[in-house]
Amino acid sequence: MEAVTIVTVLALIQFYWFGIEVGQMRAKHECKAPAMTGAPEFERMFRVQQNTMEQLVMFVPALWMYASLVNPLWAAGIGVIYLIGRVIYRSSYVKDPASRSIGFTISVLPTSVMLLWILVAAVQKLVSV
Amino acid sequence: MEAVTIVTVLALIQFYWFGIEVGQMRAKHECKAPAMTGAPEFERMFRVQQNTMEQLVMFVPALWMYASLVNPLWAAGIGVIYLIGRVIYRSSYVKDPASRSIGFTISVLPTSVMLLWILVAAVQKLVSV
Amino acid sequence: MEAVTIVTVLALIQFYWFGIEVGQMRAKHECKAPAMTGAPEFERMFRVQQNTMEQLVMFVPALWMYASLVNPLWAAGIGVIYLIGRVIYRSSYVKDPASRSIGFTISVLPTSVMLLWILVAAVQKLVSV
Repeated sequence: MEAVTIVTVLALIQFYWFGIEVGQMRAKHECKAPAMTGAPEFERMFRVQQNTMEQLVMFVPALWMYASLVNPLWAAGIGVIYLIGRVIYRSSYVKDPASRSIGFTISVLPTSVMLLWILVAAVQKLVSV
Repeated sequence: MEAVTIVTVLALIQFYWFGIEVGQMRAKHECKAPAMTGAPEFERMFRVQQNTMEQLVMFVPALWMYASLVNPLWAAGIGVIYLIGRVIYRSSYVKDPASRSIGFTISVLPTSVMLLWILVAAVQKLVSV
Repeated sequence: MEAVTIVTVLALIQFYWFGIEVGQMRAKHECKAPAMTGAPEFERMFRVQQNTMEQLVMFVPALWMYASLVNPLWAAGIGVIYLIGRVIYRSSYVKDPASRSIGFTISVLPTSVMLLWILVAAVQKLVSV
């Protein structure tokens, strides 16, 4: 499970990092808390972070269920695709929000595949008892 | 734990689905990213998804701690109530945000009961060592 | 793992409580759903809850990975610091958002330390096989 642990930590650090960037944009454009709107640069980075949180709450449980039910090494490999997808999503969204689809798809696909696979594996295991 | 796994996957797919619906409302009403305000239909669906995320980050850990500390089958059964509550919450919120209380209560009750039960069980186990 | 379970439940109940306070502010200042802006008191409490969710999605996985890879009792002890940090963050943010740094730092430090520690421990375990 070490590989899965490392991928999870990297996904959390990536999200952590996006949060720091939101703080930097807030400071740079002097958007005083609690305001969450203002400079486009700030709003874009905030949406990147928020969307990453939405992905993360599905990705982490999916990763661990997949690792324990299917295969930990495959889980780690699939998880790396998520990490790369999020990097692409972040840089394309910051440049132009309209170009966010590719990075979004690359990062949401691993979770989708794992969730469906887990569902099939769990149902099979349940009926085969 | 297969039943708990299946309920978790269904809760994640439900949240995933609400996210797709937010995207559909965004496209339909031409609310360009990163804007999170605009047509009431879009704002309502967005709040349904956000509130579901707030519930999900409590529900998933509660479900698994309850399953391992109390009973996995009860966990799965209680989890189904959460899933139904969220369906009711979604449809009532989209129709009229003022009517959201019933679905909210049905979906927040399972998590509340599990959290208090886990707390009592864990404290008992700790002092009985 | 009972101590880790108790700290996790307390962190979830704390987040739950912040959510109730958001609802109270919404009612008090008559900010009708789905609006998320309005009275400063409401916006501040909402940001406290949202920021706590951002912390929570990193804290809970970090706590459990640290507990299973390093030490469950240390995990619980470090987790208590997070809980205290969030209490300070909440009360300072509600008074004056500009004073939120101390509570933020106290609550984000435990997660940061645990994440880096887990990363080192997991990499060491992986290369030592």
